[in-house]
Amino acid sequence: MNDKLNNLSVGEAQACVLRYVPPGGSEAVPLEQSLGRVLTEDVRANRDLPPCDVSAMDGFAVRSNDLVGDDTVLTVIGDIKAGDRPRQAIASGQCARIMTGAPLPPGADAIVRVEDTQALSGARIGIAAPVKAGKDIRVQGEVMQNGETALAAGTEITPGAVGVLASLKRARVSVRRRPRVAILSSGDELEALDAPFDPERIPESNAYALMAQTQALGIEPVYLGIARDDPEELAGCLRQGLAHDVLLVSGGSSVGAHDHVRPTLEALGVTLHFWGVEMKPGHPVAFGTRDQHLVFALPGNPVSSMVCFEQFVLPALRAFMGHARLFRRTVTATLTQAVKHRPGRAEFVRVTLQRDANGRLTAASAGGQGSDNLCSMARADGLLILPEHCAGLAAGATARVQLFDGAGFEVASGFMEKMEETP
Amino acid sequence: MNDKLNNLSVGEAQACVLRYVPPGGSEAVPLEQSLGRVLTEDVRANRDLPPCDVSAMDGFAVRSNDLVGDDTVLTVIGDIKAGDRPRQAIASGQCARIMTGAPLPPGADAIVRVEDTQALSGARIGIAAPVKAGKDIRVQGEVMQNGETALAAGTEITPGAVGVLASLKRARVSVRRRPRVAILSSGDELEALDAPFDPERIPESNAYALMAQTQALGIEPVYLGIARDDPEELAGCLRQGLAHDVLLVSGGSSVGAHDHVRPTLEALGVTLHFWGVEMKPGHPVAFGTRDQHLVFALPGNPVSSMVCFEQFVLPALRAFMGHARLFRRTVTATLTQAVKHRPGRAEFVRVTLQRDANGRLTAASAGGQGSDNLCSMARADGLLILPEHCAGLAAGATARVQLFDGAGFEVASGFMEKMEETP
Repeated sequence: MNDKLNNLSVGEAQACVLRYVPPGGSEAVPLEQSLGRVLTEDVRANRDLPPCDVSAMDGFAVRSNDLVGDDTVLTVIGDIKAGDRPRQAIASGQCARIMTGAPLPPGADAIVRVEDTQALSGARIGIAAPVKAGKDIRVQGEVMQNGETALAAGTEITPGAVGVLASLKRARVSVRRRPRVAILSSGDELEALDAPFDPERIPESNAYALMAQTQALGIEPVYLGIARDDPEELAGCLRQGLAHDVLLVSGGSSVGAHDHVRPTLEALGVTLHFWGVEMKPGHPVAFGTRDQHLVFALPGNPVSSMVCFEQFVLPALRAFMGHARLFRRTVTATLTQAVKHRPGRAEFVRVTLQRDANGRLTAASAGGQGSDNLCSMARADGLLILPEHCAGLAAGATARVQLFDGAGFEVASGFMEKMEETP
Repeated sequence: MNDKLNNLSVGEAQACVLRYVPPGGSEAVPLEQSLGRVLTEDVRANRDLPPCDVSAMDGFAVRSNDLVGDDTVLTVIGDIKAGDRPRQAIASGQCARIMTGAPLPPGADAIVRVEDTQALSGARIGIAAPVKAGKDIRVQGEVMQNGETALAAGTEITPGAVGVLASLKRARVSVRRRPRVAILSSGDELEALDAPFDPERIPESNAYALMAQTQALGIEPVYLGIARDDPEELAGCLRQGLAHDVLLVSGGSSVGAHDHVRPTLEALGVTLHFWGVEMKPGHPVAFGTRDQHLVFALPGNPVSSMVCFEQFVLPALRAFMGHARLFRRTVTATLTQAVKHRPGRAEFVRVTLQRDANGRLTAASAGGQGSDNLCSMARADGLLILPEHCAGLAAGATARVQLFDGAGFEVASGFMEKMEETP
């Protein structure tokens, strides 16, 4: 047994996991179900966009040569809407009313915005100042040119990318498939969600929290239930779990469960790559593979299990799905209170985030930090990181905070509260 | 016509919309489908957690009075796992091996961690130093006490909250319902996704981008298709849309479409509250209500439509769903290039975010900023905000950036790259 495998740093353990993540295959999905997926093909433009020169404004299509001095008067010969196909050329002294996105009529080479014109009698308008040729015209192919790669393989499909794909009439797109994730709990002390209330047992919660963390990444996991502390039952459940791309086993209690889970995994042909990371909470996390299947044996303490998911399982699942960005965004926040820490293990502190009067982000403890205290995990906006060598932080110090999903939103809009301030 | 209604600031328009958002009713959903929803009931603990005093560590349950000096030797009388119900009391000179989460046996009042003990012959252990009574014990009810409110109405259900609800054996929970959202496009120039290719028409993209933006908030919208520029067809489609909680109409082209949409909405009994906001892109956005139904008439330019969704529709949908945090999180970023701006309208610039060598967030233009350029919207990590009075920003200046969903993740873990740095 290589002792190093029991004492990896968080970074070493992340790097180890990522070395073993296989790339997911690709599948075709309808455009309406493609949000958040990663393209496995280059998507090329099938036409120029805009398809011809069009107006960028509501106004009048003119010949710029007509507007030599001040106060030119032009005759309006027509009205061009988006979707029209204007055939009539604009002759000298003429113009046409035109809407945003409408094709430029022959002869015209500039747009005068409606607010820069004056309506006169007899279908005529007055224009006070000259315009340059090309003014407020969107040139054919300006957004994309026929044949050009509009979205490259590897692109994450954002709402904007969905718009681009619709522009290219891609009703189906080829994307990386999602991993099939199985979640198993283990431990005699666990009481299933639908089991009768037993005051001396511990209600099962880890698997539900892990399912929610998996769902938050766009993956619907499979729950395999609770394996009792019986070697055959456990082996059967693990064998079933190993048929999935990723298996998460949450031990009933840290060393106790691992005593069962680890040898059973090895007996099933799983190679363990580490079984201990210098972090708090979460030290007894283990990771192994069998062929291209990944197994994470997560600690039995509910918070430890969730923190290990964030650090190791989340980047693995995102890598499988083809994302380039594998890790939670961090923000810098100012501590409202001192945080103690003994150098040795990296520590993750559950915090809530607020903005102070100056708009600065501040971080405060989300409550009790015991690794069984899910209440503070429920309240937290993220995990404040105390690196392994850190000797504690004073109130007023700044630290990095990994943001949870719900923390993507804020109470303040930045507009309603302080419209007078510069950013 | 009150002219003010045509020139609202972004903040005024946001405040106006939020005044008209009705609270969504509540519904019961299975725990496994509750992620991201907002509780409409206080959820109380149905037992103490932990249910009795338990060990916080793997180690030995001892009587602290036994460990008066150095090098005490104790006899191990048993092995207690999580889920056991120890009946045998620990007498003086005795101890029991105990796992994390396992109940404390009668007589014991402290835990000695396994790493602080030495195995001796004859089922005995040596302990080098005394421990205080209560050491490494999780006290009954420490996480939650029977009857206490564990999660209050109004709480957003995070993965941690799912874990808490599972602990409380809540297989179903009462949450705010989601709004029913209908999306309608309008404009003769639009070519449907499944229509034959016509090189002179504009492929419909707005509705697909709006659908994706809605889906990103956990809502599955209804797509009503494209209404042609025919008053009766438009009225029929709008009537159908108004049966939903929220109707988004995306005009074929800004003023052109509004010329149809606005009077038709008014004829259908919709009261318009504004029809113009001092912002770029997105000026021609309109908002109205009929009874408790909300209607947003969004600009026809695809980027304008998406930016208006972010500023007005998103907070309305989140308010309906009971969230306290209605707005996108903003981060402060340093500009890599100067940004021009004429004071007057608030401007939203599509940017990508990177970290520089010092870990500082930098913002660069995501490409062409034309309001028809969806390609830069597809690439953007967020919208840089230029407030209405801003006279431009120099390279190196800092600005606020509203983060899009995909920007919740980063390339760097903060651990693999620079484990040597303090935060």
